[in-house]
Amino acid sequence: MLPIGVFDSGIGGLTVAREIMRLLPRESLIYLGDTARVPYGTKSSNTVIRYSESNTRFLISKGVKVLVVACNTASAVALPALTQRYDIPVVGVITPGARRAVSATKTGRVGVIGTPSTIGSSAYTKEIHKIDPGIEIFPAACPLFVPLADEGLHDSEIARLAARSYLAPFAEREIDVLILGCTHYPLLKRVIGEVMGEGVTLVDSAEETAREIKALLESSGLKRPTGSDAPSREFYLTDVSDTFVEVAERFLGSGIEHIELVDIGAG
Amino acid sequence: MLPIGVFDSGIGGLTVAREIMRLLPRESLIYLGDTARVPYGTKSSNTVIRYSESNTRFLISKGVKVLVVACNTASAVALPALTQRYDIPVVGVITPGARRAVSATKTGRVGVIGTPSTIGSSAYTKEIHKIDPGIEIFPAACPLFVPLADEGLHDSEIARLAARSYLAPFAEREIDVLILGCTHYPLLKRVIGEVMGEGVTLVDSAEETAREIKALLESSGLKRPTGSDAPSREFYLTDVSDTFVEVAERFLGSGIEHIELVDIGAG
Repeated sequence: MLPIGVFDSGIGGLTVAREIMRLLPRESLIYLGDTARVPYGTKSSNTVIRYSESNTRFLISKGVKVLVVACNTASAVALPALTQRYDIPVVGVITPGARRAVSATKTGRVGVIGTPSTIGSSAYTKEIHKIDPGIEIFPAACPLFVPLADEGLHDSEIARLAARSYLAPFAEREIDVLILGCTHYPLLKRVIGEVMGEGVTLVDSAEETAREIKALLESSGLKRPTGSDAPSREFYLTDVSDTFVEVAERFLGSGIEHIELVDIGAG
Repeated sequence: MLPIGVFDSGIGGLTVAREIMRLLPRESLIYLGDTARVPYGTKSSNTVIRYSESNTRFLISKGVKVLVVACNTASAVALPALTQRYDIPVVGVITPGARRAVSATKTGRVGVIGTPSTIGSSAYTKEIHKIDPGIEIFPAACPLFVPLADEGLHDSEIARLAARSYLAPFAEREIDVLILGCTHYPLLKRVIGEVMGEGVTLVDSAEETAREIKALLESSGLKRPTGSDAPSREFYLTDVSDTFVEVAERFLGSGIEHIELVDIGAG
């Protein structure tokens, strides 16, 4: 009966929360966005691990049955530390995306885009090679995509120009799958799809992660029983500004009634 | 003989440090960049004040004779709190820029660009109107400029497109002065100048702030005496990544020998 706990560096992870709510409409959910320290994707591993641990402690203190790290950077960098230190199931966004990419590629040539931290960690390459070492991976960091999505410019001429400049090198690589390795990127799906063309399958980690959580809840008997009360949804942010609320609703695809400001301390 | 203390949300304030080192080459300097929590410009006032106070405590613990808030957002939002709470002279970047704009305008029509927080605070408008209430101010937030400068894209086609889109409304306003109200923006000076044309004077807060500090040290007798030892320069960051060092050197316009990582706690 406990809620699913989800944390992200900010509001990008709401794309994951949205998919969880869509796929598991009866489950309660607590979301923590660390908007006071966002972004993680340009910061060092040590700092990202420290922040991820303080986010996890907050969610565990609220009582959650499973922890979802809805941030590619934190999944890439902090997942081993979290899995080792805390005693609840932890799901990141890297493994589900990697698994889907492996099953979707026919040519064995897969592109991955993400923040500088995620790409620098080679987390997708490692996960994919655990399943199939023969797959060739072509990574690219796209640091402007996060601010473009945050500013509501995901469908603008500037976004198209940035996408062409970041994605042009893929044309020669002949990939047939591109992993959107950042929770912000689903907002740029249209622009990215235009540049990549129809022959390339875009893998959306948010969708794949929601599927993995559904499977986990079913296999572990943690699913909320039918006929239980209406699910609750709580949203906590470490900093609240007008922009965050506006952007949050764009990411979640619906209005948010209750946003609560929390101080989770130094971490 | 004590050093000048300078803090910024990240590395943008190095443009201010650079001007201080150029104008006051004999002064020692301690720089603190809060790279673990950067950026401030999209966060709430309460959070920015809290972070500014912890930065100030760190610099005071190091022993500084004057505190420079080399961040427009922190200057706009936290300066009154810092001035009230700490017992050393505090210089922000807003007043020097405002003063220069007033003396430079002939038409009495001044544009201001900055982060959403700085623009939202109306800090430049208030400062300018203290000097001359008759001046008309036209503000515009340019949120993409910071990531563009951080990514080294300050002279790119994407930067030109962003500049045209943000600055186009000024064409009808007939301003003759534009304040670059963010320490990152001097890197985009060329692109901004191209869009604004020759008839508009760009006010660079970094230069004006260095002049104000020089005047303050001279008038208060705090200047380092001639013939003293070679000045020391120390750079502290709350998070260190490869990107930060590379970008820091671009902002400072020279190599940085000693960067030290510090943990300044929760704030």
